[in-house]
Amino acid sequence: MTLFDDDAEAASSIEYPARVRMTLAYDGRGFHGFAAQERVKTVGGTLAAAIRKVLGHPVELTCAGRTDRGVHAWGQVVSFDAEEFGLDLHGLQRSLNRMLGPSIVIRAAETASADFDARFSAKARRYRYTVLNRPVPDPFLAGFSWYIEQPLDCGALALACDPVIGEHDFSSFCRLPSDDVSLIRRVHDARWLDTGEGVLRFEIEASAFCHQMVRSLVGTMVDIGRGRKRAGDLAGILRAQDRSVASPPAPPHGLCLWGVLY
Amino acid sequence: MTLFDDDAEAASSIEYPARVRMTLAYDGRGFHGFAAQERVKTVGGTLAAAIRKVLGHPVELTCAGRTDRGVHAWGQVVSFDAEEFGLDLHGLQRSLNRMLGPSIVIRAAETASADFDARFSAKARRYRYTVLNRPVPDPFLAGFSWYIEQPLDCGALALACDPVIGEHDFSSFCRLPSDDVSLIRRVHDARWLDTGEGVLRFEIEASAFCHQMVRSLVGTMVDIGRGRKRAGDLAGILRAQDRSVASPPAPPHGLCLWGVLY
Repeated sequence: MTLFDDDAEAASSIEYPARVRMTLAYDGRGFHGFAAQERVKTVGGTLAAAIRKVLGHPVELTCAGRTDRGVHAWGQVVSFDAEEFGLDLHGLQRSLNRMLGPSIVIRAAETASADFDARFSAKARRYRYTVLNRPVPDPFLAGFSWYIEQPLDCGALALACDPVIGEHDFSSFCRLPSDDVSLIRRVHDARWLDTGEGVLRFEIEASAFCHQMVRSLVGTMVDIGRGRKRAGDLAGILRAQDRSVASPPAPPHGLCLWGVLY
Repeated sequence: MTLFDDDAEAASSIEYPARVRMTLAYDGRGFHGFAAQERVKTVGGTLAAAIRKVLGHPVELTCAGRTDRGVHAWGQVVSFDAEEFGLDLHGLQRSLNRMLGPSIVIRAAETASADFDARFSAKARRYRYTVLNRPVPDPFLAGFSWYIEQPLDCGALALACDPVIGEHDFSSFCRLPSDDVSLIRRVHDARWLDTGEGVLRFEIEASAFCHQMVRSLVGTMVDIGRGRKRAGDLAGILRAQDRSVASPPAPPHGLCLWGVLY
């Protein structure tokens, strides 16, 4: 027991200055997204303020995926530099969880090499979108899923995934497309899973995502599942590179940044 | 398809006056309990107002279990009399879900015999209490579980259930015990289940429950799981018939009225 504690302390005590990597989960409902903004409560702003309180100095947070207002995360990753000598990361994690929990929870805190950057070191991001597709809603799943009463065609949903996989220009599925920035992204995996009792989950992994890309894809796919569009339409919508031909984005509370691969 | 629709309509059209039985789920966080009270938002008050709006006349709601402020339900049952001729219960259910969902959801609505009473016809009630017992909390389970960081002794929790089963005076586990009213209740089943990943669930079924009985039992049992009390102490606490010897009640948001047996 003593040996284990000593080891744990040795592993979590690091030299000054140190790059810290943290994995966090949050319930996005109470926040105006991740990115810090003046006068509104954001995940990044709230977290940075708490870290500053514990460490005694301001930090500049970098995050893997800047989630929008109302979007949740299970595996968001942030990095920052701590100036403290012999920082106790386990203690920092516990202090932050006491201050921020349960709406923001630090699931892990560890040291990282000086060149680690939560955003630029990330190889891929994985998102999950949950749809509840049942005759009656569920008060316990309501905060984390999009309720749709009309039965969706799961076969059509599955077919609609195929054209998305690979490297494409996602202008049709991006908010505010810009001429300056490339909207080409590589999607490694995209699939709908029927997890039982009407809980349908869309999982998508890509090198990176454009703004509102997952919600726009889900909005269009759900229209396909409803029969308002056909599965075969998706390839054409993608090729059109025109936001107006896709469906409106699905609501934010069904979306969750599930994890980041480095 | 037409035949099915006709059948469904026939089954849901009933004669005036009709006793209605509804099963409902709710997220208790936004409500001051079930029982209607003036000037505060309650599940019963909110539901009765919505039914009145749809049916055009006031109803007197009877419920199987008057849940406290902040307590959830998955299988609460209510009964009331509808005056309308040829009432469309499926339509009533849909209208109410549109008005009240997702925090209150009507899971089922059906006609009942004139002598059915949600409270007095009930043979047993079943409650679930969820404890999250992990090194770090979870923002998605936070609203429906009691987070306890310290690892609980599951063997001790299991042992503590045995003395509860059977017919006992539950004065030690009731809020405001009264000399006038019997606090003798028959517990049919009481058990702790480890459902994995630190989610521990206490399930208890009894003919009826005293006020705060489940939360008081869980508060005492969690103290046993923490090692503050011993499993063997529970029988003595029960025999003492003294509220002061048991532990404080567990918080309401971990509790859920799971179902009612008729």
